[in-house]
Amino acid sequence: MEINLREIHSPADIKGLDVEQLYLLSEELRGALMRKLGAHGGHVGPNLGVVEATVALHYVFDAPSDKIVYDVSHQSYVHKMLTGRIDAFLDKDKYDDVTGYTCPRESEYDLFEVGHTSTSISLATGLAKARDIEGGKWNVVAFIGDASLGGGMALEALNYAPELHSNIIIILNDNQMSIAENHGALYSHLMELRNSNGKSSDNIFKALGYEYVYVEEGNDICSLVKAFRSVKDSGRAVLVHINTMKGMGLPCAETNKEEFHYTAPFDLKTGAPLSPWNAESYEDIFALRMIDKMHADKKVVTLTAGTPAAIGFGEERRGLAGSNFIDVGIAEQDCVAMAAGLAKGGARPVTGVVATFLQRAYDQLSHDVAINNLPAAFVVFYGSMFGMNDMTHLGFFDIAMVSSIPNIKLLAPATAEEFVAMLDNATDSPDGPVVIRIPGGAVRHQDRPVDTDFSKYEIVESGSEVAIIAEGPFLHTAIDAAGLMRDKGVTPTVINPRILSDVDKECLDSLRGYRRVITIEDGIVDGGFGQKVAGYLGDSEVKVTCLGLKKEFLDRFSVAEVLEENGLTPESIASMV
Amino acid sequence: MEINLREIHSPADIKGLDVEQLYLLSEELRGALMRKLGAHGGHVGPNLGVVEATVALHYVFDAPSDKIVYDVSHQSYVHKMLTGRIDAFLDKDKYDDVTGYTCPRESEYDLFEVGHTSTSISLATGLAKARDIEGGKWNVVAFIGDASLGGGMALEALNYAPELHSNIIIILNDNQMSIAENHGALYSHLMELRNSNGKSSDNIFKALGYEYVYVEEGNDICSLVKAFRSVKDSGRAVLVHINTMKGMGLPCAETNKEEFHYTAPFDLKTGAPLSPWNAESYEDIFALRMIDKMHADKKVVTLTAGTPAAIGFGEERRGLAGSNFIDVGIAEQDCVAMAAGLAKGGARPVTGVVATFLQRAYDQLSHDVAINNLPAAFVVFYGSMFGMNDMTHLGFFDIAMVSSIPNIKLLAPATAEEFVAMLDNATDSPDGPVVIRIPGGAVRHQDRPVDTDFSKYEIVESGSEVAIIAEGPFLHTAIDAAGLMRDKGVTPTVINPRILSDVDKECLDSLRGYRRVITIEDGIVDGGFGQKVAGYLGDSEVKVTCLGLKKEFLDRFSVAEVLEENGLTPESIASMV
Repeated sequence: MEINLREIHSPADIKGLDVEQLYLLSEELRGALMRKLGAHGGHVGPNLGVVEATVALHYVFDAPSDKIVYDVSHQSYVHKMLTGRIDAFLDKDKYDDVTGYTCPRESEYDLFEVGHTSTSISLATGLAKARDIEGGKWNVVAFIGDASLGGGMALEALNYAPELHSNIIIILNDNQMSIAENHGALYSHLMELRNSNGKSSDNIFKALGYEYVYVEEGNDICSLVKAFRSVKDSGRAVLVHINTMKGMGLPCAETNKEEFHYTAPFDLKTGAPLSPWNAESYEDIFALRMIDKMHADKKVVTLTAGTPAAIGFGEERRGLAGSNFIDVGIAEQDCVAMAAGLAKGGARPVTGVVATFLQRAYDQLSHDVAINNLPAAFVVFYGSMFGMNDMTHLGFFDIAMVSSIPNIKLLAPATAEEFVAMLDNATDSPDGPVVIRIPGGAVRHQDRPVDTDFSKYEIVESGSEVAIIAEGPFLHTAIDAAGLMRDKGVTPTVINPRILSDVDKECLDSLRGYRRVITIEDGIVDGGFGQKVAGYLGDSEVKVTCLGLKKEFLDRFSVAEVLEENGLTPESIASMV
Repeated sequence: MEINLREIHSPADIKGLDVEQLYLLSEELRGALMRKLGAHGGHVGPNLGVVEATVALHYVFDAPSDKIVYDVSHQSYVHKMLTGRIDAFLDKDKYDDVTGYTCPRESEYDLFEVGHTSTSISLATGLAKARDIEGGKWNVVAFIGDASLGGGMALEALNYAPELHSNIIIILNDNQMSIAENHGALYSHLMELRNSNGKSSDNIFKALGYEYVYVEEGNDICSLVKAFRSVKDSGRAVLVHINTMKGMGLPCAETNKEEFHYTAPFDLKTGAPLSPWNAESYEDIFALRMIDKMHADKKVVTLTAGTPAAIGFGEERRGLAGSNFIDVGIAEQDCVAMAAGLAKGGARPVTGVVATFLQRAYDQLSHDVAINNLPAAFVVFYGSMFGMNDMTHLGFFDIAMVSSIPNIKLLAPATAEEFVAMLDNATDSPDGPVVIRIPGGAVRHQDRPVDTDFSKYEIVESGSEVAIIAEGPFLHTAIDAAGLMRDKGVTPTVINPRILSDVDKECLDSLRGYRRVITIEDGIVDGGFGQKVAGYLGDSEVKVTCLGLKKEFLDRFSVAEVLEENGLTPESIASMV
């Protein structure tokens, strides 16, 4: 008896398997998955932990007529292997044929482009309601991790779903981990449920009216199949709580769950990265500076919403930081409003946040922080086209978002020295909310002293006729472009704007006699700082060209191509004059 | 024995009262409150329901050293009466000396400007953490209604707060109502807790590790004082669940809780409005059109997140709409993502939302709706400077917010006919996400036919040299300004842009020979459609002036003054040429 993964073209191909074959299939899938993960990198722990659960899902339910929604969908690799995309996991040259998340462009088995957490139950309620309107009988399943369940949106939907009085099945994949450890009282409760084999009193899911099913052996295919069969075609809201092991089957991932949540290519035996990364990073600069600050002044607090390592705070540094490092779990809204409360209470909160997730707290930035004009600082990581490049994790919308909120200063350093000076200002002499956008790309340094009046643009190179105002990493592009222009006899003025939320009127007024002003930003042009400049200079003779990205959702793009297409290379900029 | 309200200057003045006096005080406060509410209008039911709870809070706790955070803070009138602002409730000419929400500009007893729901627990965790860092011993209290507790941010914080292992006291004011009825499984659970005198099994608060105290008589001052005293200075997270009656003491408000949540001035005896309002409204136009649509096509669904009446769906119309009208409770994130799920499932979701609350679902608009390019429609109410004017409820940031998200068409009708045509398009032939921004001010009509290619600007009046591109209500301002300009010998082209998320390049290119283009929008200039126009025309000879609001948080402003200050009157616009 043998399983040939290449013969699995759809879930129909596993429906006839017997128990023993299902066990074999799971092992084959896990082996293949590990080989790809080692060579290619990706979400290691989340996928290894759900091999059996995914097999059981597709064995019991009938996708695509039954609808399965994966939360975050970073754990959907095995799902892809079972739904016609096995080659992308077996053939090295096809590894990149699939995205790292569910993707309707790839397969009808994938319902949504997803990458942020806590959305699956809401999406499932919509699918369930649409089904009921149509009179359909298929199952709607939301597959969600314990960490994602703590996000407010998931809790809103957990509250609403039973009100449909109809089939909706939530699989709670409890692997006892977020990216790092979980935070919040819910997790003590889940532990009690696990420790009591699902029988603990004060069951939160029963309190909300769910039929509750507990599966102790969440990596055992038989237990899972039995549980899923018991709830299939239910006429009500059901929650199946499965106890799984993150990183299952790969020793280094089972042991070091945080590091192997997501990794670059690594040696399967030792866990060591194949290409060690020793470059200077803003994560390190930020974390080390914050640890110093927290040690020097107990009022300084660092916050994160579930992404400590992404802001430089691995386990060891969290230990060094102690109780002044706060991780509220995947709860960006709570995090930003808690920062507001801390600032009001006299503390000096600095929140580190990944750009794409900052948009989950727009209302808190505006309503809680900005309206109250509280001295809270936010440091944005990967707010750049040089950062993440999955469609659901893009980092180039934050300039437009933040700079239309009153009272918030949006600062964009171009170098490490400027970044540190802005961070120091924010904790040492805060005068209101500030968002500091870490520059994308490699860490750059500057020899010239940092002028700390960040409400003013900085003239980096003086010239005439043409000015280039370029923020963040593009300051260096502008300097290069200026060199090319000089070769053609034009000496442009090069300006580092530093502040993107407001224009420096004095500086712009000094350019009114110029022929042309070019703005460049590491974000979309729409709603960016360039259009503020264009608006301010709209009644002058000077021509303004705003460079940046087109307003679109790119997916797994080549930065070089995007720079070319949007005219963001030094050559292209120089050719404008 | 008598209580003289005028002698209450701070909570210290009620600390010495005995039980009988506290009863008297509550009745005096309620009487005064009713007189102001009848003559002035305001949040009637929420405040009448918490008279005793507020007295008990200030009797037991020691503000301002103890910190009390009111959720939404629309129920803080009695708090204001007890903290030095009694005259604003007794003297007609001082009624407007206080805002309708907590306001740190008014009093040190008010910690935050608040107006959106579900923020109090997060803010309180920040205050509690800041206190613990400082080594303080004061109490931190979050006062939150049952409806607000269903918002995701409140649930995130409910999860996190016990992890502080420190004093934090949540008063859950359970009046069994949202603005309208509650939605979600939590409310069945709260009912079970009430019905069992707090003893029901599967207690969700105990599951999360809270000390749980139930007060059946939440409008009885003695019961409340006893309960609050029992938890004061607790060293852990406590939840006090108080059962109160919305509208307590005023028959019309006790009976008709939804209508008397917030009202204009009314007759205390009959409940009848003092100035009946019979003008045509977009709420009616929207609701009636949607009811017709839902009756004609069961796939059409209307959604709201807790504000049905604000979008025209009072109780009677909800009955007419039936199960295709969905209220998810105060859960904007869930609402928008559920709309995405509905659209994916083949339904035609139309979500009605108040502008200031749309920003609570930025991530869902972007991540769930826009990235997936789903045919979901959103109709924005009060997105205008002519709408709400409390600092926490401003409606002029949505253009900047929505129009920087790819794939979403942001449409701005200028008349009822245009609005209806856009709404019909969205349900009958949707081709992706659309946000329709209802025009502010009085309903306007048009005789000319509606051109339904909404990707194109509409030339309303043809002229030369000068063009005015004015959206929404300002189209009519522009027409008036054009009249004044003609008197001076200039005949401007007047353009109704209709679409704000993208520029009509063809139309703008046709203006390149013009001397000046003026854009006008009912929102902030920063990040608005005007700056897109300025950016697009930046490399031409034409001068562009972007009119709209300055980027600032206004509070209880006079529209006439704001129009004047921002150069938005026909006279001011005409004077530019």
